[in-house]
Amino acid sequence: MKVLFTYNYGETAFQMISELGYEVIYKSEKTLTDTDLVGVDVLVCYDPFRRLSATAYRDLSYIILSSTGINQLPEAVVASNIKVTHNRYGYATPIAEWIVMMLLVGHKQLSALIEQHQNKNWQIRTDLLEMTGRRIVFLGTGNIASQAVKRLTPFDVEIIGVNRSGRSVDGFAAIYPLSELENVLATADAVVVCLPQTAETEKLVATAALSAMKDDAIFINISRGSVVDETALLAALQAGKFSFCALDVVRQEPLDSASPLWNFPQLLITPHNSWLSEKRNNRRLDYIVENLRCIKNGRPLLYVANKKRGY
Amino acid sequence: MKVLFTYNYGETAFQMISELGYEVIYKSEKTLTDTDLVGVDVLVCYDPFRRLSATAYRDLSYIILSSTGINQLPEAVVASNIKVTHNRYGYATPIAEWIVMMLLVGHKQLSALIEQHQNKNWQIRTDLLEMTGRRIVFLGTGNIASQAVKRLTPFDVEIIGVNRSGRSVDGFAAIYPLSELENVLATADAVVVCLPQTAETEKLVATAALSAMKDDAIFINISRGSVVDETALLAALQAGKFSFCALDVVRQEPLDSASPLWNFPQLLITPHNSWLSEKRNNRRLDYIVENLRCIKNGRPLLYVANKKRGY
Repeated sequence: MKVLFTYNYGETAFQMISELGYEVIYKSEKTLTDTDLVGVDVLVCYDPFRRLSATAYRDLSYIILSSTGINQLPEAVVASNIKVTHNRYGYATPIAEWIVMMLLVGHKQLSALIEQHQNKNWQIRTDLLEMTGRRIVFLGTGNIASQAVKRLTPFDVEIIGVNRSGRSVDGFAAIYPLSELENVLATADAVVVCLPQTAETEKLVATAALSAMKDDAIFINISRGSVVDETALLAALQAGKFSFCALDVVRQEPLDSASPLWNFPQLLITPHNSWLSEKRNNRRLDYIVENLRCIKNGRPLLYVANKKRGY
Repeated sequence: MKVLFTYNYGETAFQMISELGYEVIYKSEKTLTDTDLVGVDVLVCYDPFRRLSATAYRDLSYIILSSTGINQLPEAVVASNIKVTHNRYGYATPIAEWIVMMLLVGHKQLSALIEQHQNKNWQIRTDLLEMTGRRIVFLGTGNIASQAVKRLTPFDVEIIGVNRSGRSVDGFAAIYPLSELENVLATADAVVVCLPQTAETEKLVATAALSAMKDDAIFINISRGSVVDETALLAALQAGKFSFCALDVVRQEPLDSASPLWNFPQLLITPHNSWLSEKRNNRRLDYIVENLRCIKNGRPLLYVANKKRGY
């Protein structure tokens, strides 16, 4: 069987995969073309799809994605019989840490305190808040949210989730269905967006949802910029909405330096960085190798994506 | 009995305390003099002591401090029979939240990311670390450290404590005595100073301790500036020590704008702000009122300080 990697995991890893019985090919994502995929059974990649035509996938049986999100899959793959796996747990730990950090940064006014340091200004701030007792609402209750909830629990906060059906998930004090979105948002002291990019979540957080939120709420998005209507968000920020807003994702990345989003004192933009961790390569490789073993041994694959649902 | 407050807790609180059977006097800490304390049984204050002479305390039976630290007590009070209580648990929750925040800020290079935002620069950073698996050493294992440990436990970190005797404390994976300080520091990925200001802790973190720490360790001080030898710290910072250092306290507060401490990229200085919380007044008042009740009813006081030990 032939497996094509678009990222170089190094000689040791490739040697080990050869020993599983694969012919290993490496070709950078930036130069991949249709012909490279002829005769390839397994494609291990992040997002080479924009460079490929709809007929490039004819020989493929499996795509092993290095990402958690699967929104980059082209329709030709979604409609095909190719089995796609995604790195479901690969980034949940660093992103969960990030969520806790940003919640605390919001409560403690850390951006303003850092500016005070830059100005060599020792001036105690009396507007710092405690996180204890706050109501934190997660939009999306998948494994990233669950890992964050695990870490937030000893802070004695009230943790509410919103998901499609309202089905219960461990660790949350309550879960509401998406149909209750605005009612739930109206009660939130902080809102954390952990939803995948799908047709259903496109601009889910638009004027109605933003208006429902408290003016001094904290708003954090670590999933995909597509979930938020940025025109509505801009209007809300201009009206002074949010005591703190942290966006690690925006609709068009990289964010242009001319974007008006950079200019709000209550908004902190980070460059899609929350998933980064020194453990990312080993964790990703473990999942890839395990799935290559499953394919060889005819065992069920880990983390098969639901291509129709989009996650 | 007469109780003198140096902070105005408001009419409702003072009325309630009158109903316990006290004569309530309010006099600001900034204008308090010896004569104000004539005939006063209970002094409720933070630090009016620099304004008072050694004979000012003759009539006092109790001092109820609003602070956790007691290092501001003058020798005349330490040597007297006056019972002193301190606000032992009054700030542990916000400071514990602060510790978790600063640990995460250090791992995630947030100061640098905030600077990138200020420059409207979307540039992913690949040097972010996960907190999972790190060894975090607490100098001091009192209630502030314990509250931090409670919140850090689900992050799957290894939590080590150092205290005077090496006595064990719940939540810590291991505790070492102060005599092992440098050996323990040498193994730490992060060090959090939670020690009280006493003669014994004066400049405990000096050249030897700083040299023992890993060059890329995270160093956080939320207790008192006196614990650190600032000349030695400056030399260490100049040599590039620490991946991140967060000082909420320094030896001389407020820190002068001419201090060289402001100039290190790896150092974040905040203005003794970690204890601040919107819940501080109610929490402090609860403890004060409870102790005034205890005095009236002859019950043992809450949180009697060990004046000789200094905490």
